[in-house]
Amino acid sequence: MIKAVFFDIGYTLYQDHNAGLRAAKRVSEYLSSIGYYYDVNYLWQLFCKSREAIRYFGGDDFEPWDFSSLTMLLSSIGIRNPEIVLNAYKEFVEGVSEGLVLEDDAIDVLEYLRNKGYILAVVSNMGSYDIVLRILSRDKILKYFNAIVASQMVGWRKPSSKIYEYTLRLLGLNPKETVHVGDDPIADVFGAKKAGLRAIHKPR
Amino acid sequence: MIKAVFFDIGYTLYQDHNAGLRAAKRVSEYLSSIGYYYDVNYLWQLFCKSREAIRYFGGDDFEPWDFSSLTMLLSSIGIRNPEIVLNAYKEFVEGVSEGLVLEDDAIDVLEYLRNKGYILAVVSNMGSYDIVLRILSRDKILKYFNAIVASQMVGWRKPSSKIYEYTLRLLGLNPKETVHVGDDPIADVFGAKKAGLRAIHKPR
Repeated sequence: MIKAVFFDIGYTLYQDHNAGLRAAKRVSEYLSSIGYYYDVNYLWQLFCKSREAIRYFGGDDFEPWDFSSLTMLLSSIGIRNPEIVLNAYKEFVEGVSEGLVLEDDAIDVLEYLRNKGYILAVVSNMGSYDIVLRILSRDKILKYFNAIVASQMVGWRKPSSKIYEYTLRLLGLNPKETVHVGDDPIADVFGAKKAGLRAIHKPR
Repeated sequence: MIKAVFFDIGYTLYQDHNAGLRAAKRVSEYLSSIGYYYDVNYLWQLFCKSREAIRYFGGDDFEPWDFSSLTMLLSSIGIRNPEIVLNAYKEFVEGVSEGLVLEDDAIDVLEYLRNKGYILAVVSNMGSYDIVLRILSRDKILKYFNAIVASQMVGWRKPSSKIYEYTLRLLGLNPKETVHVGDDPIADVFGAKKAGLRAIHKPR
Protein backbone atom coordinates (compact mmCIF):
# COMPACT_ATOMS: atom_id res chain seq x y z
CA MET A 1 0.00 0.00 0.00
CA ILE A 2 1.28 3.45 -0.89
CA LYS A 3 1.83 5.57 2.23
CA ALA A 4 3.95 8.41 0.90
CA VAL A 5 4.31 10.66 -2.14
CA PHE A 6 7.60 12.38 -3.00
CA PHE A 7 7.62 15.39 -5.33
CA ASP A 8 10.26 16.84 -7.59
CA ILE A 9 10.34 20.66 -7.79
CA GLY A 10 11.46 21.98 -11.21
CA TYR A 11 8.83 21.30 -13.89
CA THR A 12 6.79 19.29 -11.37
CA LEU A 13 5.55 21.38 -8.43
CA TYR A 14 7.07 24.47 -10.06
CA GLN A 15 7.45 25.98 -13.52
CA ASP A 16 10.93 27.14 -14.39
CA HIS A 17 10.91 30.61 -15.95
CA ASN A 18 14.61 30.95 -16.81
CA ALA A 19 15.63 30.62 -13.18
CA GLY A 20 19.33 30.21 -14.02
CA LEU A 21 19.50 33.30 -16.21
CA ARG A 22 17.56 35.35 -13.68
CA ALA A 23 20.15 34.37 -11.09
CA ALA A 24 22.98 35.41 -13.42
CA LYS A 25 21.18 38.71 -14.11
CA ARG A 26 20.89 39.48 -10.40
CA VAL A 27 24.56 38.64 -9.83
CA SER A 28 25.53 40.77 -12.85
CA GLU A 29 23.51 43.73 -11.53
CA TYR A 30 25.04 43.41 -8.09
CA LEU A 31 28.56 43.27 -9.55
CA SER A 32 27.82 46.37 -11.69
CA SER A 33 26.68 48.22 -8.58
CA ILE A 34 30.15 47.76 -7.10
CA GLY A 35 32.03 48.53 -10.29
CA TYR A 36 32.51 45.14 -12.00
CA TYR A 37 30.83 44.87 -15.41
CA TYR A 38 30.10 41.40 -16.76
CA ASP A 39 27.61 40.21 -19.34
CA VAL A 40 24.79 38.02 -17.99
CA ASN A 41 25.26 35.19 -20.48
CA TYR A 42 29.00 35.15 -19.92
CA LEU A 43 28.47 34.94 -16.15
CA TRP A 44 26.01 32.08 -16.58
CA GLN A 45 28.47 30.18 -18.80
CA LEU A 46 31.21 30.68 -16.22
CA PHE A 47 28.88 29.47 -13.48
CA CYS A 48 28.08 26.28 -15.41
CA LYS A 49 31.76 25.69 -16.14
CA SER A 50 32.72 26.18 -12.48
CA ARG A 51 29.97 23.82 -11.44
CA GLU A 52 31.15 21.17 -13.90
CA ALA A 53 34.74 21.56 -12.66
CA ILE A 54 33.61 20.80 -9.12
CA ARG A 55 31.37 17.91 -10.20
CA TYR A 56 34.39 16.47 -11.95
CA PHE A 57 36.08 16.21 -8.53
CA GLY A 58 33.09 14.66 -6.85
CA GLY A 59 31.78 12.21 -9.42
CA ASP A 60 28.63 11.83 -11.48
CA ASP A 61 26.09 11.76 -8.68
CA PHE A 62 27.76 14.53 -6.66
CA GLU A 63 25.87 17.82 -6.25
CA PRO A 64 28.09 20.82 -5.52
CA TRP A 65 26.63 23.67 -3.49
CA ASP A 66 25.87 26.68 -5.69
CA PHE A 67 27.84 28.79 -3.23
CA SER A 68 30.92 26.74 -3.99
CA SER A 69 30.43 27.04 -7.77
CA LEU A 70 29.78 30.77 -7.42
CA THR A 71 32.91 31.20 -5.30
CA MET A 72 34.92 29.53 -8.06
CA LEU A 73 33.27 31.60 -10.81
CA LEU A 74 33.96 34.88 -9.00
CA SER A 75 37.49 33.84 -8.24
CA SER A 76 38.08 33.14 -11.93
CA ILE A 77 37.30 36.81 -12.68
CA GLY A 78 39.48 37.99 -9.79
CA ILE A 79 36.78 38.62 -7.16
CA ARG A 80 37.78 36.93 -3.91
CA ASN A 81 36.45 39.19 -1.18
CA PRO A 82 34.35 36.87 1.03
CA GLU A 83 31.68 39.51 1.69
CA ILE A 84 31.20 40.19 -2.02
CA VAL A 85 30.94 36.43 -2.66
CA LEU A 86 28.30 36.13 0.06
CA ASN A 87 26.27 39.06 -1.29
CA ALA A 88 26.46 37.61 -4.80
CA TYR A 89 25.19 34.28 -3.47
CA LYS A 90 22.20 36.00 -1.85
CA GLU A 91 21.37 37.58 -5.21
CA PHE A 92 21.81 34.20 -6.91
CA VAL A 93 19.35 32.52 -4.51
CA GLU A 94 16.89 35.38 -4.97
CA GLY A 95 17.18 35.16 -8.78
CA VAL A 96 16.60 31.41 -9.01
CA SER A 97 13.68 31.72 -6.57
CA GLU A 98 12.05 34.43 -8.71
CA GLY A 99 12.26 32.13 -11.71
CA LEU A 100 10.46 29.26 -9.98
CA VAL A 101 6.70 29.71 -10.11
CA LEU A 102 4.28 27.40 -8.31
CA GLU A 103 2.06 25.33 -10.63
CA ASP A 104 -1.59 26.47 -10.54
CA ASP A 105 -2.93 23.18 -9.27
CA ALA A 106 -0.10 22.32 -6.86
CA ILE A 107 -1.93 23.40 -3.70
CA ASP A 108 -5.08 21.49 -4.68
CA VAL A 109 -3.04 18.34 -5.21
CA LEU A 110 -1.11 18.72 -1.93
CA GLU A 111 -4.31 19.49 -0.01
CA TYR A 112 -6.05 16.47 -1.52
CA LEU A 113 -3.18 14.10 -0.71
CA ARG A 114 -2.78 15.43 2.81
CA ASN A 115 -6.49 14.93 3.47
CA LYS A 116 -6.14 11.36 2.24
CA GLY A 117 -3.45 10.86 4.91
CA TYR A 118 -0.36 10.52 2.72
CA ILE A 119 3.10 11.39 4.00
CA LEU A 120 4.48 14.05 1.64
CA ALA A 121 8.07 15.02 0.85
CA VAL A 122 10.11 17.08 -1.59
CA VAL A 123 13.08 15.36 -3.27
CA SER A 124 14.71 17.92 -5.54
CA ASN A 125 17.92 18.26 -7.52
CA MET A 126 18.82 21.74 -6.39
CA GLY A 127 22.27 23.20 -5.73
CA SER A 128 21.02 25.33 -2.82
CA TYR A 129 18.76 24.11 -0.05
CA ASP A 130 18.21 27.83 0.61
CA ILE A 131 16.31 28.11 -2.67
CA VAL A 132 13.96 25.23 -1.88
CA LEU A 133 13.21 26.59 1.57
CA ARG A 134 12.70 30.10 0.24
CA ILE A 135 10.16 29.17 -2.45
CA LEU A 136 8.19 26.74 -0.26
CA SER A 137 7.95 29.40 2.47
CA ARG A 138 7.08 32.16 0.01
CA ASP A 139 4.29 30.05 -1.51
CA LYS A 140 3.06 28.86 1.90
CA ILE A 141 3.34 25.16 1.09
CA LEU A 142 6.05 24.27 3.63
CA LYS A 143 3.34 22.95 5.97
CA TYR A 144 2.34 20.13 3.62
CA PHE A 145 5.69 18.34 3.79
CA ASN A 146 7.13 15.89 6.32
CA ALA A 147 10.57 16.16 4.76
CA ILE A 148 12.27 18.56 2.39
CA VAL A 149 15.36 17.15 0.76
CA ALA A 150 17.55 18.97 -1.75
CA SER A 151 20.51 17.32 -3.44
CA GLN A 152 22.89 19.99 -2.08
CA MET A 153 21.82 19.12 1.43
CA VAL A 154 23.00 15.53 1.09
CA GLY A 155 25.59 15.92 -1.65
CA TRP A 156 24.04 13.52 -4.19
CA ARG A 157 21.77 14.14 -7.14
CA LYS A 158 18.98 12.07 -8.53
CA PRO A 159 19.11 9.52 -10.21
CA SER A 160 21.49 8.41 -7.41
CA SER A 161 19.68 6.04 -5.07
CA LYS A 162 21.38 7.78 -2.14
CA ILE A 163 19.08 10.82 -2.11
CA TYR A 164 16.00 8.58 -2.21
CA GLU A 165 17.42 6.31 0.51
CA TYR A 166 18.22 9.29 2.73
CA THR A 167 14.63 10.57 2.41
CA LEU A 168 13.11 7.12 3.04
CA ARG A 169 15.27 6.73 6.12
CA LEU A 170 14.24 10.16 7.41
CA LEU A 171 10.61 9.18 7.19
CA GLY A 172 10.96 5.55 8.29
CA LEU A 173 9.50 4.32 5.00
CA ASN A 174 10.07 1.30 2.78
CA PRO A 175 10.60 2.08 -0.88
CA LYS A 176 7.61 -0.10 -1.84
CA GLU A 177 5.32 2.18 0.20
CA THR A 178 6.43 5.25 -1.72
CA VAL A 179 5.77 6.84 -5.09
CA HIS A 180 7.91 9.64 -6.55
CA VAL A 181 6.43 12.19 -8.95
CA GLY A 182 8.68 14.04 -11.37
CA ASP A 183 9.21 15.19 -14.94
CA ASP A 184 12.68 13.82 -15.67
CA PRO A 185 12.77 10.32 -17.18
CA ILE A 186 16.25 9.64 -15.79
CA ALA A 187 16.44 11.52 -12.46
CA ASP A 188 12.84 10.99 -11.41
CA VAL A 189 11.57 7.81 -13.09
CA PHE A 190 14.68 5.67 -13.55
CA GLY A 191 16.23 6.98 -10.31
CA ALA A 192 13.16 6.30 -8.17
CA LYS A 193 12.63 2.83 -9.67
CA LYS A 194 16.29 1.97 -9.18
CA ALA A 195 15.86 2.82 -5.46
CA GLY A 196 12.81 0.54 -5.34
CA LEU A 197 10.11 3.24 -5.32
CA ARG A 198 7.25 3.50 -7.76
CA ALA A 199 7.41 6.45 -10.11
CA ILE A 200 4.85 8.69 -11.78
CA HIS A 201 6.09 10.58 -14.82
CA LYS A 202 4.59 14.08 -15.09
CA PRO A 203 5.41 15.32 -18.60
CA ARG A 204 6.56 18.95 -18.83
CA MET B 1 58.97 30.88 -2.80
CA ILE B 2 56.05 30.75 -0.41
CA LYS B 3 53.26 33.10 -1.51
CA ALA B 4 50.33 31.86 0.54
CA VAL B 5 49.49 30.58 4.01
CA PHE B 6 46.43 28.42 4.70
CA PHE B 7 45.05 28.08 8.22
CA ASP B 8 43.03 25.40 9.94
CA ILE B 9 40.41 26.67 12.42
CA GLY B 10 39.82 24.27 15.35
CA TYR B 11 42.84 24.17 17.69
CA THR B 12 44.79 26.40 15.27
CA LEU B 13 43.24 29.86 14.82
CA TYR B 14 40.62 28.96 17.43
CA GLN B 15 40.41 27.12 20.73
CA ASP B 16 37.59 24.61 20.99
CA HIS B 17 35.71 24.95 24.29
CA ASN B 18 33.32 21.99 23.96
CA ALA B 19 31.76 23.41 20.82
CA GLY B 20 29.87 20.18 20.03
CA LEU B 21 28.31 19.85 23.48
CA ARG B 22 27.38 23.54 23.51
CA ALA B 23 25.56 22.99 20.23
CA ALA B 24 23.73 19.99 21.69
CA LYS B 25 22.83 22.03 24.77
CA ARG B 26 21.33 24.81 22.66
CA VAL B 27 19.34 22.33 20.60
CA SER B 28 18.17 20.59 23.79
CA GLU B 29 17.05 23.93 25.28
CA TYR B 30 15.20 24.86 22.12
CA LEU B 31 13.44 21.49 22.01
CA SER B 32 12.45 21.84 25.70
CA SER B 33 10.98 25.26 24.95
CA ILE B 34 8.56 23.60 22.52
CA GLY B 35 7.78 20.61 24.71
CA TYR B 36 10.32 17.95 23.72
CA TYR B 37 12.66 16.89 26.52
CA TYR B 38 15.96 15.26 25.59
CA ASP B 39 19.21 14.92 27.47
CA VAL B 40 22.15 16.89 26.06
CA ASN B 41 24.56 13.96 25.95
CA TYR B 42 21.97 11.72 24.36
CA LEU B 43 21.30 14.33 21.65
CA TRP B 44 25.01 14.70 20.97
CA GLN B 45 25.40 10.91 20.63
CA LEU B 46 22.47 10.79 18.23
CA PHE B 47 23.98 13.64 16.23
CA CYS B 48 27.31 11.80 15.89
CA LYS B 49 25.52 8.58 14.90
CA SER B 50 23.44 10.37 12.27
CA ARG B 51 26.53 12.03 10.89
CA GLU B 52 28.35 8.70 10.67
CA ALA B 53 25.36 7.14 8.91
CA ILE B 54 25.51 9.82 6.24
CA ARG B 55 29.30 9.61 5.93
CA TYR B 56 28.86 5.90 5.35
CA PHE B 57 26.89 6.76 2.18
CA GLY B 58 29.39 9.29 0.97
CA GLY B 59 32.73 7.67 1.70
CA ASP B 60 35.70 8.44 3.92
CA ASP B 61 36.54 11.90 2.64
CA PHE B 62 32.91 13.02 2.40
CA GLU B 63 31.75 15.83 4.72
CA PRO B 64 28.01 15.88 5.37
CA TRP B 65 26.35 19.20 6.11
CA ASP B 66 25.46 19.50 9.81
CA PHE B 67 21.96 20.47 8.72
CA SER B 68 21.59 17.11 7.03
CA SER B 69 22.88 15.21 10.11
CA LEU B 70 20.62 17.26 12.38
CA THR B 71 17.61 16.58 10.13
CA MET B 72 18.31 12.85 10.46
CA LEU B 73 18.82 13.06 14.24
CA LEU B 74 15.54 14.95 14.76
CA SER B 75 13.72 12.59 12.45
CA SER B 76 14.97 9.63 14.50
CA ILE B 77 13.15 11.08 17.54
CA GLY B 78 10.02 11.82 15.52
CA ILE B 79 10.55 15.53 14.86
CA ARG B 80 10.07 16.23 11.15
CA ASN B 81 8.52 19.70 11.00
CA PRO B 82 10.80 21.63 8.63
CA GLU B 83 10.53 24.87 10.60
CA ILE B 84 11.51 23.16 13.85
CA VAL B 85 14.47 21.54 12.07
CA LEU B 86 15.56 24.92 10.74
CA ASN B 87 15.29 26.59 14.15
CA ALA B 88 17.25 23.75 15.73
CA TYR B 89 19.97 24.20 13.12
CA LYS B 90 20.23 27.91 13.94
CA GLU B 91 20.72 27.00 17.60
CA PHE B 92 23.30 24.39 16.61
CA VAL B 93 25.32 26.93 14.60
CA GLU B 94 25.10 29.41 17.46
CA GLY B 95 26.25 26.79 19.98
CA VAL B 96 29.28 25.62 18.01
CA SER B 97 30.22 29.26 17.34
CA GLU B 98 30.07 30.09 21.06
CA GLY B 99 32.47 27.22 21.74
CA LEU B 100 35.08 28.46 19.27
CA VAL B 101 37.27 31.15 20.82
CA LEU B 102 39.87 33.06 18.84
CA GLU B 103 43.47 32.38 19.94
CA ASP B 104 45.05 35.38 21.70
CA ASP B 105 47.80 35.87 19.16
CA ALA B 106 45.79 35.08 16.02
CA ILE B 107 45.25 38.70 14.97
CA ASP B 108 48.94 39.57 15.48
CA VAL B 109 49.96 36.64 13.27
CA LEU B 110 47.43 37.48 10.55
CA GLU B 111 48.37 41.16 10.64
CA TYR B 112 52.06 40.30 10.39
CA LEU B 113 51.57 37.93 7.45
CA ARG B 114 49.29 40.34 5.61
CA ASN B 115 51.84 43.13 5.97
CA LYS B 116 54.47 40.76 4.53
CA GLY B 117 52.22 40.38 1.46
CA TYR B 118 51.12 36.77 1.88
CA ILE B 119 47.86 35.49 0.43
CA LEU B 120 45.84 34.07 3.34
CA ALA B 121 43.10 31.47 3.39
CA VAL B 122 41.11 29.32 5.80
CA VAL B 123 40.88 25.59 5.02
CA SER B 124 38.75 24.01 7.73
CA ASN B 125 37.02 20.70 8.37
CA MET B 126 33.68 22.08 9.44
CA GLY B 127 30.22 20.64 8.80
CA SER B 128 28.67 24.11 8.40
CA TYR B 129 30.13 26.94 6.35
CA ASP B 130 27.71 29.13 8.34
CA ILE B 131 29.78 28.52 11.47
CA VAL B 132 33.07 29.55 9.86
CA LEU B 133 31.54 32.70 8.44
CA ARG B 134 29.87 33.53 11.72
CA ILE B 135 33.00 33.29 13.87
CA LEU B 136 35.28 35.08 11.41
CA SER B 137 32.76 37.93 11.17
CA ARG B 138 32.19 38.05 14.92
CA ASP B 139 35.93 38.24 15.58
CA LYS B 140 36.50 40.77 12.75
CA ILE B 141 39.12 38.68 10.95
CA LEU B 142 37.16 38.05 7.73
CA LYS B 143 39.13 40.86 6.07
CA TYR B 144 42.44 39.04 6.34
CA PHE B 145 41.44 36.15 4.07
CA ASN B 146 41.40 35.82 0.30
CA ALA B 147 39.47 32.58 0.50
CA ILE B 148 37.44 30.83 3.17
CA VAL B 149 36.91 27.16 2.51
CA ALA B 150 34.99 24.79 4.77
CA SER B 151 34.72 21.08 4.05
CA GLN B 152 30.91 21.28 3.99
CA MET B 153 31.09 23.87 1.25
CA VAL B 154 32.91 21.51 -1.10
CA GLY B 155 31.80 18.15 0.31
CA TRP B 156 35.27 16.76 1.13
CA ARG B 157 37.24 16.73 4.34
CA LYS B 158 40.94 17.02 4.94
CA PRO B 159 43.12 14.95 4.54
CA SER B 160 41.47 14.61 1.10
CA SER B 161 43.55 16.42 -1.49
CA LYS B 162 40.34 17.72 -3.05
CA ILE B 163 39.73 20.45 -0.48
CA TYR B 164 43.33 21.68 -0.85
CA GLU B 165 43.12 21.53 -4.65
CA TYR B 166 39.85 23.47 -4.64
CA THR B 167 41.40 26.21 -2.52
CA LEU B 168 44.57 26.38 -4.64
CA ARG B 169 42.47 26.63 -7.77
CA LEU B 170 40.37 29.43 -6.26
CA LEU B 171 43.50 31.45 -5.59
CA GLY B 172 45.43 30.52 -8.73
CA LEU B 173 48.26 29.04 -6.66
CA ASN B 174 50.65 26.14 -7.10
CA PRO B 175 50.92 23.78 -4.13
CA LYS B 176 54.66 24.48 -3.90
CA GLU B 177 53.95 28.15 -3.22
CA THR B 178 51.72 27.33 -0.30
CA VAL B 179 52.09 26.32 3.33
CA HIS B 180 49.23 24.98 5.44
CA VAL B 181 49.18 25.47 9.23
CA GLY B 182 47.18 23.11 11.43
CA ASP B 183 47.14 20.96 14.54
CA ASP B 184 46.04 17.60 13.15
CA PRO B 185 48.86 15.30 12.05
CA ILE B 186 46.63 13.50 9.54
CA ALA B 187 44.19 16.13 8.25
CA ASP B 188 46.58 19.05 8.29
CA VAL B 189 50.11 17.71 7.92
CA PHE B 190 49.70 14.47 5.95
CA GLY B 191 46.79 15.93 3.94
CA ALA B 192 48.60 19.09 2.94
CA LYS B 193 51.80 17.23 2.03
CA LYS B 194 49.83 14.69 -0.02
CA ALA B 195 48.39 17.61 -2.00
CA GLY B 196 51.93 18.93 -2.55
CA LEU B 197 51.82 21.81 -0.07
CA ARG B 198 54.28 22.38 2.74
CA ALA B 199 52.87 21.94 6.22
CA ILE B 200 53.49 23.50 9.61
CA HIS B 201 52.35 21.48 12.58
CA LYS B 202 50.98 23.65 15.40
CA PRO B 203 50.66 21.41 18.46
CA ARG B 204 47.45 21.80 20.50
